[in-house]
Amino acid sequence: MADSTVYRASTTAPVNIAVIKYWGKRDPKLNLPTNSSLSVTLAQSDLRTHTTAACSTLFPAGQDTLLLNGAAQDVSGARTQACFRELRALREALEAQDPQLPKLAQQPLRIVSENNFPTAAGLASSAAGFAALVRAIADLYQLPATPTELSRIARQGSGSACRSLFGGYVAWEKGTAADGSDSLAYEVAPASHWPDMRALILVVSAAKKGVSSTTGMQATVATSSLFAARANDTVPARMRDMASAIKAKDFAAFADLTMKDSNSFHACCLDTSPPIFYMNDVSRAAVRAVEAINAAAGKTVAAYTFDAGPNAVVYYAAEHEAAVAGAFKAVLAGTEGWSGARGEAVAADEKAAACVDEKTAEALREGVGRVILTGVGEGPISVLEHLVDERGEAVKA
Amino acid sequence: MADSTVYRASTTAPVNIAVIKYWGKRDPKLNLPTNSSLSVTLAQSDLRTHTTAACSTLFPAGQDTLLLNGAAQDVSGARTQACFRELRALREALEAQDPQLPKLAQQPLRIVSENNFPTAAGLASSAAGFAALVRAIADLYQLPATPTELSRIARQGSGSACRSLFGGYVAWEKGTAADGSDSLAYEVAPASHWPDMRALILVVSAAKKGVSSTTGMQATVATSSLFAARANDTVPARMRDMASAIKAKDFAAFADLTMKDSNSFHACCLDTSPPIFYMNDVSRAAVRAVEAINAAAGKTVAAYTFDAGPNAVVYYAAEHEAAVAGAFKAVLAGTEGWSGARGEAVAADEKAAACVDEKTAEALREGVGRVILTGVGEGPISVLEHLVDERGEAVKA
Repeated sequence: MADSTVYRASTTAPVNIAVIKYWGKRDPKLNLPTNSSLSVTLAQSDLRTHTTAACSTLFPAGQDTLLLNGAAQDVSGARTQACFRELRALREALEAQDPQLPKLAQQPLRIVSENNFPTAAGLASSAAGFAALVRAIADLYQLPATPTELSRIARQGSGSACRSLFGGYVAWEKGTAADGSDSLAYEVAPASHWPDMRALILVVSAAKKGVSSTTGMQATVATSSLFAARANDTVPARMRDMASAIKAKDFAAFADLTMKDSNSFHACCLDTSPPIFYMNDVSRAAVRAVEAINAAAGKTVAAYTFDAGPNAVVYYAAEHEAAVAGAFKAVLAGTEGWSGARGEAVAADEKAAACVDEKTAEALREGVGRVILTGVGEGPISVLEHLVDERGEAVKA
Repeated sequence: MADSTVYRASTTAPVNIAVIKYWGKRDPKLNLPTNSSLSVTLAQSDLRTHTTAACSTLFPAGQDTLLLNGAAQDVSGARTQACFRELRALREALEAQDPQLPKLAQQPLRIVSENNFPTAAGLASSAAGFAALVRAIADLYQLPATPTELSRIARQGSGSACRSLFGGYVAWEKGTAADGSDSLAYEVAPASHWPDMRALILVVSAAKKGVSSTTGMQATVATSSLFAARANDTVPARMRDMASAIKAKDFAAFADLTMKDSNSFHACCLDTSPPIFYMNDVSRAAVRAVEAINAAAGKTVAAYTFDAGPNAVVYYAAEHEAAVAGAFKAVLAGTEGWSGARGEAVAADEKAAACVDEKTAEALREGVGRVILTGVGEGPISVLEHLVDERGEAVKA
């Protein structure tokens, strides 16, 4: 008798924001980076992708599908196909070892995903998306793979996705093998080691998206005369120093490296031909505000970092919430995003905000469309709330 | 009988805008640079300093003075003192050789200068200022020194001033001697070799001046991890390529190197701790406009470059005036500065401007306060119009 079960597994996966940036591929097809990177995984209560992977002989043969926030996505791209192919191969190996196992690898996949944050916010949702996709299919297939083993697969979907398979503080070692077998993510420290790390995201109302990171990083590798120094010398030293700072919970060292590495990355973008500008005058106002807050505190209590867009992510330790988040809340009192539990817990601190000059404050008020308050968090979590029902139909969470 | 003559000599000196940028000192006291640089001297009909150097026993003993645009300047700074000291030493050597010569080296100096452009425009007037000061005193003292010999002295006043002792296309070789004796400027090609080079300066209405270049470049040397690659590898190669491009009158190669080097310099500023931002969203709009003009032309007809501030200098060849200056005039029709002879000769070209998207045009209209149309020009010129009268009093030009 034919097996008409709808097999399902669901997971949530987090966003991560790098403090040592990934920029440049030595192998674009395998997503192998020119340098290692290191990130902080952010709490899923604030930002996460929820994904259900289902498979069934009931689904139309040969048709894998992916629904994201209710919209059908193209799964024919090389990146998604690489993830499907690698995961099926691992399942096939299991099935070959144990003939009792249901033959899931042959069944069509139905993937349904939902983000709890606006895709338009430019929050690199592909990292959470591919981490959730890989983790959910691995769970569906009951693969015994560790997160580091799965990171090899998630990396092929989206480079930074490999880091979202872990919580806390995560390194992606570039590796040296041509096949990418040693380009993997590892836990540097769990969230519980340094749980007080907070992140305030200033979502800049950018008129349009800039150069895609895939296109941009290849242009940098091809044309920047400064990039080799970053990849070969600057980043390896910073990877060591950042791991030490995290292990020692040394916020000032963490912050110094975070800001320097963000600036180094954007410097290489500017040194690209034609130049790539991700930061704008609003981003620069965020830099000035963080500098003013640190100067007023007499020590480094906040660190900015910018990905491939104008949004600022400001890291700070919980003990300095008033000086950092309190100052930004006073400046950006009218901005959307303070209404969640974390935002309401922050008291606007006019005194702390006094160090931010009026021009900088004005630029932030005009340019920041939304704030997101979050902090370090856990890696992917298996959940029983499925986005595909027992008959195989997509459902809303 | 005492000599009561008022000895006078007057000169005008030009501004220069580097296409391979000077950034970083290996010796701050002697203004010795970490890398060579190369500039285009701009026409003095548009931008110049007019300086008269006078000396007389009638002037109060021991009191050298400098009047700039009617305002007394402090001459006690090490840079001005170095120029006075070096020039006096050369005069003393002459006087020692020929006892018939009047003893000018001992007499107090009265220097009077006027710029024909607003100092507030952020046009690096110190280069023209120190070049004029050194040239005028050298003429007053009747020194047989060549411009290259004088460049050693002007460099100690303001690094880039050494390039303003020449017209046309000028290299400042960094040199290697500890005493700076070989850190000198040379003519790469006279203005007459490639007279068609034009420059459109977009003066950005910046709210306030950023980090001074003296402070900024030292911070870059001390903190940027990418800067060494620029100084040691990138610039030496570009100096050779740029000299070749100028000799061949190859505008596309000149433009490519100019834009890359400006971006490389600003990348190193961004890689400084704390980061230095000279370019703003208006500067970036100028970059976008030049990129659009080049794309529309199907070849490189314009090159942007930015010094230590948001102003854009756009180089183009006279044959492409319509495509470049014509496009900018159409976009910036209401902006001050088109009323001079050069500006009136440019016809606003709406068709050429069509490639500039509305958002970019709007940013330029909002941010550019003034345009200056100029081109490659001659070096310092001796003039008989003195800013000090026969009795030693300062007069207006």
